[in-house]
Amino acid sequence: MTVEMIFVGTELLLGNIVNTNGQFLSEQCAALGLPVYYQTVVGDNEERLSAVIETAFSRSDVVLLCGGLGPTEDDLTKEVCARTMGIPLTEHPEARAELDAFMSRLNVVITENNYKQAMAPVGAVYADQLPDEKKAGDGRGGKGVENDGDENEAGSGEGGRKSVAADRCLLLRNPNGTAPGLLMEKNGKTAILLPGPPNEMKPMFLDQVKPYLVKKSGQVFLSAVVKICGVGESSVETRVLDLVDSQTNPTIATYAKTGEVHIRVTASGKTGEEAQKLIKPCVKELKKRFGDDVYTAKPEVSLEMAVVKLLNKYGLTITTAESCTGGMVAARLVGVPGVSDVFSEGFVTYSNKAKRKFLDVSKTTLKKYTAVSAETAKEMAIGGVLANDSDMCVSVTGLAGPDGATPEIPLGRVYIGCCLKGKTVVKEYNFTGSREKIREMAASAALDLARRCILEQCKGK
Amino acid sequence: MTVEMIFVGTELLLGNIVNTNGQFLSEQCAALGLPVYYQTVVGDNEERLSAVIETAFSRSDVVLLCGGLGPTEDDLTKEVCARTMGIPLTEHPEARAELDAFMSRLNVVITENNYKQAMAPVGAVYADQLPDEKKAGDGRGGKGVENDGDENEAGSGEGGRKSVAADRCLLLRNPNGTAPGLLMEKNGKTAILLPGPPNEMKPMFLDQVKPYLVKKSGQVFLSAVVKICGVGESSVETRVLDLVDSQTNPTIATYAKTGEVHIRVTASGKTGEEAQKLIKPCVKELKKRFGDDVYTAKPEVSLEMAVVKLLNKYGLTITTAESCTGGMVAARLVGVPGVSDVFSEGFVTYSNKAKRKFLDVSKTTLKKYTAVSAETAKEMAIGGVLANDSDMCVSVTGLAGPDGATPEIPLGRVYIGCCLKGKTVVKEYNFTGSREKIREMAASAALDLARRCILEQCKGK
Repeated sequence: MTVEMIFVGTELLLGNIVNTNGQFLSEQCAALGLPVYYQTVVGDNEERLSAVIETAFSRSDVVLLCGGLGPTEDDLTKEVCARTMGIPLTEHPEARAELDAFMSRLNVVITENNYKQAMAPVGAVYADQLPDEKKAGDGRGGKGVENDGDENEAGSGEGGRKSVAADRCLLLRNPNGTAPGLLMEKNGKTAILLPGPPNEMKPMFLDQVKPYLVKKSGQVFLSAVVKICGVGESSVETRVLDLVDSQTNPTIATYAKTGEVHIRVTASGKTGEEAQKLIKPCVKELKKRFGDDVYTAKPEVSLEMAVVKLLNKYGLTITTAESCTGGMVAARLVGVPGVSDVFSEGFVTYSNKAKRKFLDVSKTTLKKYTAVSAETAKEMAIGGVLANDSDMCVSVTGLAGPDGATPEIPLGRVYIGCCLKGKTVVKEYNFTGSREKIREMAASAALDLARRCILEQCKGK
Repeated sequence: MTVEMIFVGTELLLGNIVNTNGQFLSEQCAALGLPVYYQTVVGDNEERLSAVIETAFSRSDVVLLCGGLGPTEDDLTKEVCARTMGIPLTEHPEARAELDAFMSRLNVVITENNYKQAMAPVGAVYADQLPDEKKAGDGRGGKGVENDGDENEAGSGEGGRKSVAADRCLLLRNPNGTAPGLLMEKNGKTAILLPGPPNEMKPMFLDQVKPYLVKKSGQVFLSAVVKICGVGESSVETRVLDLVDSQTNPTIATYAKTGEVHIRVTASGKTGEEAQKLIKPCVKELKKRFGDDVYTAKPEVSLEMAVVKLLNKYGLTITTAESCTGGMVAARLVGVPGVSDVFSEGFVTYSNKAKRKFLDVSKTTLKKYTAVSAETAKEMAIGGVLANDSDMCVSVTGLAGPDGATPEIPLGRVYIGCCLKGKTVVKEYNFTGSREKIREMAASAALDLARRCILEQCKGK
């Protein structure tokens, strides 16, 4: 079963946005063991989109289409894909009601063009309303019960094409937006339509499309993701090369992320247990090789979640004292649900005055060593603990640029401090890239340093 | 003249890396006004790559190929592209010498497979060695002098295809790596081969390919982006529909962003002035229609930049008091270079205790109205101004979930306060989506409210 992807959106062709959806879906399909040979980006243009869809179906079994499901005139994906597959559309009463409910929750007056999002193939049902055995692709290409009798209903396909109902059509709920997703099976081919905004597309894929693909492929694939901080990508690659080369099941692949490297271990089997058994020794070996550089082996756990988990485990509270990251570390911690048990407040002290006033950094230190120094980072971390009465504080001060570099302090120089139980550690970093990239790397490094300090002082005690 | 892009690399299909080259080249082409209708990602596979190249030439004039120029067996782009175009390759003595020189600078022993990078079409010359008038595409499809006499030279094209020299072949220098780029013109079509690593591809494109494309296209394109906050995408679309439908130069297109809608206005002309003249009245009309909902018309200006600009203009300082956004507002402000003139510090007050301690929110308010209330947002904003001695403070408190919803306070309810010169405004919002999405929307809304308060109180005074 081969999968192909089509990304629809003039904003991609114009370079307004990076195609991060492409990476997400590619990584997901790789993790499911589904071969992807082609990806295409095409604009919101009927003729070209239709041609691209036809080409995709001529060479792949499943076509994922992403983008162009919105309410505007530009959004054509559903209409063009249905027409290309010869499937007629009609207004879906429940989808219309969902849309009304969503817009009223937002207190937004609905405009008529919104209702095009409620159009769906004749006989479409919500995926979660199917009886269990019908929910996912069964590989048999069977029709859903709902379509009985619709098969020969002629639609109004333009260009003289005769439209008949699909073999099976499922609507995919979109709790994060107005456009539902859509899954259409016909003549052994499947089109899966996903919205373009990543916060809508990702949960829809994970919750509704992934189970379908898993069942359809007839094999269970399981992945562990060994996530590593503080080691460069090429170094990680070199240290796992023997495993990558010698393994076929599980497969091992490395992915570079901002401030992190992920090693994905994927195994396939007839059952989940069988796959799990194959993964386990490999993850164990990776953990042995990288030790405390590994912060999790679970795909869904982020670095900030790992930090919050450790804080909870050892009954610690944390505070933040940020200069160049300007609140990014705090914001990432607050992104973890339930963080209130371990995080109560944080400081953004961008000016020297604020570092003095709220964190009690001494005037002499700022004058003698400047704000971007190990000494300032140290006093910020200590000051944060004292000001907030928390168990630990992580501090960040650095030069994110683009201006201000000196012979002594190059662009990208960042000092991160961590004070825990009276012991304060400071590390120097030299990041490269844009202001944004330097700040993101610094925020990751700060979370990682907090994690390492907790492990060092609390592990096994 | 249409341009199409092909990105070659299994690492893209597996999702190991994000295709940032795609955005870079798309944005560059858009800025040059070159229409790009298709982009394809394909793996390091001879048959599939060749088919994709043929398809691209059947529908586009210029094909940019990116990746697969390296020394390994996997790297096939040059070989496959030349074969598909029927152009024979031979070792290029100067390219071989350059390669030797590069490797010796790196102190690396050269291996035999490296020399495949020195293969080039018969008669190829370095672009910078051409006489000036021959350097860039002249649109006449003329042959370069260097190929005189080569035209009918039979090559050893595989599969029985007769290979003849290209109309013009240019080698593109790669000061940052071993693989030179390549530009091949034949029968009115142009293939431009670029290396995959961004640090090699970008300078090669900017220094050697861009001037070629500019000269070849003979037209100048300019864009303005009217950015709007506080109005939904479908509403914006409805209000500009008449302009979108009636305009061909400039063209008008809307883009939904998190918490914002962007309207891009693009015009083409023989000169920059001519294009600018066409854009101006259209931008003026859009500004008239959306008034203060527009925060900029410049592509490079973000919402936080617009806020910082206003603060600078009216000599104001700002501070932040954040609960559910946990530092996101401050972090976005700090993302603006030079923010230190207007932003000195911010508070993340996630717990009630922190709201009391640092912002002096009264115990009674928190008890009577809870933390997620207009009253708390108001006191947080006032408290922020007092605690920090700044001119204004924007405050955010809300329920980002996933837990904690009550009949009174639904998930996504957010209150944003703004205190400026003794006047405090509070607004209620109901966002939907994940915890992350709700927080991102709240941060945008907070920046927008700050912007509106400044305009309301300071504009024209």
